[in-house]
Amino acid sequence: MGGEAGNAGMSAATRAVLRRLPSLPILRWGKEYGRDTLVSDLLAALIVTIMLIPQGLAYALLAGLPPEAGLYASIAPLVLYALFGTSRVLAVGPVALISLMTATAIGDLAVAGSPEYWSAAIALAFLSGLILCAMGLLRLGFLANFLSHPVISGFISASALLIAAGQLNTILGIEARGHTFVEIVANLARHLPQTQSLSAAVGLCAAAFLFWARTALKPLLVRRGIAPRTTDAIVKSAPVAAIAATTLPTWLLGWHEQGLKIVGSVPAGLPPLTLPSWNPALWEALLLPALLISVVGFVESVSVAQTLAARRRQRIEPDQELVALGASNLSAAFSGGFPVTGGFARSVVNFDAGARTPAAGIYTAAGVGLASVMLTPALYYLPQATLAATIIVAVLSLIDVDIFRRTWIYSKTDFVAMLSTVAATLTVGVETGLVTGVAVSLALFLFRTSRPHIAEVGLVPGTEHFRNVLRHPVKTSPRLVSLRVDESLYFANARTLEDRVNEAAAKHPELQHLVLQCSAINVIDASALESLEAIEKRLREAGIALHLSEVKGPVMDRLKHTEFLHGLSGKVFLTHYQAIGELTPEVMDPLAAR
Amino acid sequence: MGGEAGNAGMSAATRAVLRRLPSLPILRWGKEYGRDTLVSDLLAALIVTIMLIPQGLAYALLAGLPPEAGLYASIAPLVLYALFGTSRVLAVGPVALISLMTATAIGDLAVAGSPEYWSAAIALAFLSGLILCAMGLLRLGFLANFLSHPVISGFISASALLIAAGQLNTILGIEARGHTFVEIVANLARHLPQTQSLSAAVGLCAAAFLFWARTALKPLLVRRGIAPRTTDAIVKSAPVAAIAATTLPTWLLGWHEQGLKIVGSVPAGLPPLTLPSWNPALWEALLLPALLISVVGFVESVSVAQTLAARRRQRIEPDQELVALGASNLSAAFSGGFPVTGGFARSVVNFDAGARTPAAGIYTAAGVGLASVMLTPALYYLPQATLAATIIVAVLSLIDVDIFRRTWIYSKTDFVAMLSTVAATLTVGVETGLVTGVAVSLALFLFRTSRPHIAEVGLVPGTEHFRNVLRHPVKTSPRLVSLRVDESLYFANARTLEDRVNEAAAKHPELQHLVLQCSAINVIDASALESLEAIEKRLREAGIALHLSEVKGPVMDRLKHTEFLHGLSGKVFLTHYQAIGELTPEVMDPLAAR
Repeated sequence: MGGEAGNAGMSAATRAVLRRLPSLPILRWGKEYGRDTLVSDLLAALIVTIMLIPQGLAYALLAGLPPEAGLYASIAPLVLYALFGTSRVLAVGPVALISLMTATAIGDLAVAGSPEYWSAAIALAFLSGLILCAMGLLRLGFLANFLSHPVISGFISASALLIAAGQLNTILGIEARGHTFVEIVANLARHLPQTQSLSAAVGLCAAAFLFWARTALKPLLVRRGIAPRTTDAIVKSAPVAAIAATTLPTWLLGWHEQGLKIVGSVPAGLPPLTLPSWNPALWEALLLPALLISVVGFVESVSVAQTLAARRRQRIEPDQELVALGASNLSAAFSGGFPVTGGFARSVVNFDAGARTPAAGIYTAAGVGLASVMLTPALYYLPQATLAATIIVAVLSLIDVDIFRRTWIYSKTDFVAMLSTVAATLTVGVETGLVTGVAVSLALFLFRTSRPHIAEVGLVPGTEHFRNVLRHPVKTSPRLVSLRVDESLYFANARTLEDRVNEAAAKHPELQHLVLQCSAINVIDASALESLEAIEKRLREAGIALHLSEVKGPVMDRLKHTEFLHGLSGKVFLTHYQAIGELTPEVMDPLAAR
Repeated sequence: MGGEAGNAGMSAATRAVLRRLPSLPILRWGKEYGRDTLVSDLLAALIVTIMLIPQGLAYALLAGLPPEAGLYASIAPLVLYALFGTSRVLAVGPVALISLMTATAIGDLAVAGSPEYWSAAIALAFLSGLILCAMGLLRLGFLANFLSHPVISGFISASALLIAAGQLNTILGIEARGHTFVEIVANLARHLPQTQSLSAAVGLCAAAFLFWARTALKPLLVRRGIAPRTTDAIVKSAPVAAIAATTLPTWLLGWHEQGLKIVGSVPAGLPPLTLPSWNPALWEALLLPALLISVVGFVESVSVAQTLAARRRQRIEPDQELVALGASNLSAAFSGGFPVTGGFARSVVNFDAGARTPAAGIYTAAGVGLASVMLTPALYYLPQATLAATIIVAVLSLIDVDIFRRTWIYSKTDFVAMLSTVAATLTVGVETGLVTGVAVSLALFLFRTSRPHIAEVGLVPGTEHFRNVLRHPVKTSPRLVSLRVDESLYFANARTLEDRVNEAAAKHPELQHLVLQCSAINVIDASALESLEAIEKRLREAGIALHLSEVKGPVMDRLKHTEFLHGLSGKVFLTHYQAIGELTPEVMDPLAAR
């Protein structure tokens, strides 16, 4: 709810309208911008730029696009996010997962590398941008909540496997593409004899070096007494070192003439102005992928932003974030890019490097812009295998094996949702995987709430408490059954209550009273109300009175105006103890205990 | 859970397997069958037969089938239900709603009246039978719970309107068919000038008479001192009277030669043996309709059965009912019928007429069988307008206008679901209407649970109770925030809690403690656990400790083994009062109140 300051003189209606409009957070942090902040932001931007350039090139490759698209996608979107975003440190740009989803979405529509392919990527970014903006303006950010954590974890791990397997062919220099994990692995195995040994050597060395830099380099530098901030900067620039160390010998020794695939000529210059093509058939084909990319991108981005904001006690406004990510994607579409979102690794680096305001993002954009004007000739001899190695090392850190074990221990239901997501992602594809995960987790949730816990309770002797008759030695009367309902009543579980009441009535031939203890019921919907009416009617016809006890205030407020309550054969008791005392006093007398 | 008697010697596993098998309830009631029961059952069967013959003919007409199909569908299915069903009084056979759904499902696949059309109806009954049996054996009866009462009410009322409007053309003797209510009404209006006056006169007189019989005849007979049981029998045979009173003059005066449409020759004889055609394309087209017909038929049938069973303190076993209805539909498919289910009106008549066991259904089947052998020549001159009138009068009683008003008053959410169902049923069709209703009610339910009520609470001075700070004058400390969560935590609402906690942390700069009062949380799923971990981590980084209070036993059992609980920065308190007393003792002292 942005812009609540200085609204004292407005009417409530005006304020309500203003609250629904997107705000420009830059107006808030811009005022306090000073020299100190500038220095911090510039330093952070430098480190992020060094990290972003190889990532941008690599993720463009992963998305099936020319490398310069990765640079273009790292310029305008950063500026737009800086203007509209509520996170002060989120680093927007191409990320692995969204690049894979982009490749999947447009892989069937055009040949990778063709102008149509790039044009489809631009249309996809445009559609995602529109969807994100619409979700933000309509305040539909809550839709992302329906992606449960186990589904996201499963999806990310499975996608990372898919990405890594797909990059192995680039490293080995063989043609072994495929749509699913199984296909990719089978093709890899079949084409393995055709491995290009130079490419494999370069790629595997680069991968080994990057792994080492990620795991062993930092402790080493720290032991040598180097300052932590410098250590971090060195570690994060390992991909740049890997690029330099493989590009240089390729240039000097002419490895590309021995079959090593290189990036080749990358046009120098600022991003071109591109327009998304107006092609209804294309748009229709891209609609679902764009929706999934929007939701996944939003979930990834907003969870990073929230984690980092909380460390400095700042707030993220999810609906405003949607608008900011939407604007970023729209700008990507107009500047030759492809779908982007806030990345985890880069944002953490930005935060650790001391970024204080979104201006750091603008400086990063300037840095990448400078690189795309000046540095592209240096990228000519860059081996594709090196870029593939940076992707593999980056995505393998996304795979979380332990979460499977922990989820299995904590909740079998969640584990089923997770496993379905992984299975569908690996065997069918990312889009099916995601949709399957959401469907399975919703179905399992609905299934669980459709079977509420309903316990027959009895009086614990010597107390005013009631407990489950199956678990505790309690006092009951054959003339009265007490049922405690442990869930709100709604259409999917209302009939379970009917069944339980029917069962109780059929089991106790002497039954005169049935009391529902309603202490855990927060809502009774219209279906449950009709079920209660049906229960009341059936019990009345069988000569049994229905009573309620411990009904919550808001539930009672609604029931008050219903025929059900006015025609109730029994009474409504404030406490269950009171009900038992009045209806079956014999149970209260310790001497009458059975 | 049938067949629990006499299992003492079996192993638990054997009993568990046996419980999952369908049982033969006839073995239970067959033993006690005596002369008294026989007389009661025979009498009830006679009345139901008189009622069923015109209904069978009319509903066959509604389904677009030749009249004899209605008779065939009222023989074998009744016998099969009598063998497998758990209700002692449910009268199975063709019903209006299912006949309309049948017409809709096969209307686009074949021309009404053609052999292909009838063959498709047989395939539909077969598929429904398979689906119902499978649902019963897999114990999927709970799936029917996802049809909420407002959706069913809306669907039944809208379908009744659709049926009545569709029958008006038969009464008026004009050709004005259409798929949707709007189309039917528009066509009726356009063709109104072509009204066949004789047909209209017969149809409207029959309708008026049937209305009068339904509303005014019974009080009249009672006033004349006729016994209630005889009164009922007379009232229920009104359709037979209408048929006689219109068939006779048609025969004598040759009205059919003046353009009045008559039933024509109905082949005499018992049902033929028919086999569902094995046509994969047809089966695929019929799969969704068959599923919807199965679920709607089951819901209608089981709610009638339960209502009647409860009056005599008998039990209905929903999963066994699925098998029984499945067997009925399979038998309909093998005997030239179409989809059937337990009808409301006929079952009530059967019950009121004194049916004691399912044998009454077998006698009814024998009665209808006798009629289809002997009575068909008498049906030759029966005007179709009379049958249309019986349909209209029957279905208009299904329309419940008051339920709309009551639902609107009781719950706007349920009203939205109901109205969506009605709108989609009338404008698109019955199948879309039903699917829309289920989708909207599930979406609204998920939306509601995704926004749980979370209240910031404070101590009510002088008590140990905590209340919402926005509503009550309570004591709080700027160092501590207490949040009470009024819903189980799961993936769709976990982030709402994160948001609320972030907001609280951002709002209170002096915050040191945040206590979650968990008294209303029944479940914490893996997503919510991760959210709690994220909350804990963010708060810890901001120097705030997270505490829990009043955690329920089962929730605690699960949390016990998690890293979340082991690494918790705060404590777990048994009561919230204890938490406040230990963390902010200044709030407890009345003198320190702010």
